[in-house]
Amino acid sequence: MRDAYHEELDSIGESLVEMARLVGSAIGRATTAMLDADLKLAESVIAADQKVDDLQHDLEARAIALLARQQPVATDLRIVVTSLRMSADLERSGDLAQHVAKLARLRFPESPVPRDLAATILEMGQLAQRLMAKAAEVIITKDVDLALQLEQDDDAIDMLHRTLFQHLMDDRWKHGIETAVDVTLLGRYYERFADHAVSVAKRVVYLVTGEHADEIAPTTPVAPVDTESPA
Amino acid sequence: MRDAYHEELDSIGESLVEMARLVGSAIGRATTAMLDADLKLAESVIAADQKVDDLQHDLEARAIALLARQQPVATDLRIVVTSLRMSADLERSGDLAQHVAKLARLRFPESPVPRDLAATILEMGQLAQRLMAKAAEVIITKDVDLALQLEQDDDAIDMLHRTLFQHLMDDRWKHGIETAVDVTLLGRYYERFADHAVSVAKRVVYLVTGEHADEIAPTTPVAPVDTESPA
Repeated sequence: MRDAYHEELDSIGESLVEMARLVGSAIGRATTAMLDADLKLAESVIAADQKVDDLQHDLEARAIALLARQQPVATDLRIVVTSLRMSADLERSGDLAQHVAKLARLRFPESPVPRDLAATILEMGQLAQRLMAKAAEVIITKDVDLALQLEQDDDAIDMLHRTLFQHLMDDRWKHGIETAVDVTLLGRYYERFADHAVSVAKRVVYLVTGEHADEIAPTTPVAPVDTESPA
Repeated sequence: MRDAYHEELDSIGESLVEMARLVGSAIGRATTAMLDADLKLAESVIAADQKVDDLQHDLEARAIALLARQQPVATDLRIVVTSLRMSADLERSGDLAQHVAKLARLRFPESPVPRDLAATILEMGQLAQRLMAKAAEVIITKDVDLALQLEQDDDAIDMLHRTLFQHLMDDRWKHGIETAVDVTLLGRYYERFADHAVSVAKRVVYLVTGEHADEIAPTTPVAPVDTESPA
């Protein structure tokens, strides 16, 4: 019985990794769809989010069934509860990737991103995808050092986010209001996506060490974005 | 033993109600602080979010202790797991209220909201606060009809959100890019805040009926905001 239990626990972990893989791919593809104004790709990202939602529902049902049947305590209990939270983070990340793809669809056949911001947005998309790939790796390896690295990658996203705001606030901004609105929301989507990836990694740290990531290795403090920009 | 258990379960419910009360108050005060350019009020909202975070941490610890000690099954288990999710919704709502207050602080001594949008933003803030008050009432009363009402209130927020976008996209927009960025983010904060209130109510419906709210009474379908605007 105990073996079936650990198998089930492992399979929950595998679902989390699969969700992270799917949403990491989604944010990369959504970014490409937007920069290339590729409607088909955008549509495929939008449709694919259902898979992530299904995985989450399935994972939740299994986690709750596990709690009811096996009544785990101590570490095992924490693993199940934390898995539920991670799945919520990942499901929400999928929504955010879908928002990016929907923006691509809304502005088709144009790209919502002006040429002079394409490199910044591309980099945000790549970083977001990489953060999620690392989060998946952290789930698999439970590597605390790698988990702590994610916060630095997140700082890099925050920097890019500030760069976007500097462009927006520059008097020479020439792309009009609609593009300003699009870029504002895009910046927010990538930032939130990255936050969720970091959150997943932090939860693994908490499982492994029993301490919250912030208590272990405070990264160099940077001013939160919202002291310099409204995001 | 069983009595202590139900007392503990009740006290978790009370914490949820208290969190909802705090974040409902926070969104109302943050809106006022922003419209009146009241720095002191903004600061107080920003500082008060710590209380919400503390309540969530405390609630989580108690819920996990309850799972470990009492090993609830069936409905009781679902209540505890759902409470954990509701507390996450409420904690996030608190963050969003704090974002509004931080925007008020960032633009002080100006208001980030231009006069001709003040009524719309005020209404969004009031609706958001009312939604959260109703969510608290739903937690207390477990009133499924009231819970389903929240979706209609949420539709009203979506309508206001579209109104904001129409203003932004109007060629006569004269408030410049910075204000467009601020208003875009504000619209998003209120919309997400309302989403979390609806989510809390839906979780109660699920607890009471065992069915997801969407399966019970589909509200009149409205096009999602993102078919008309990028949010």
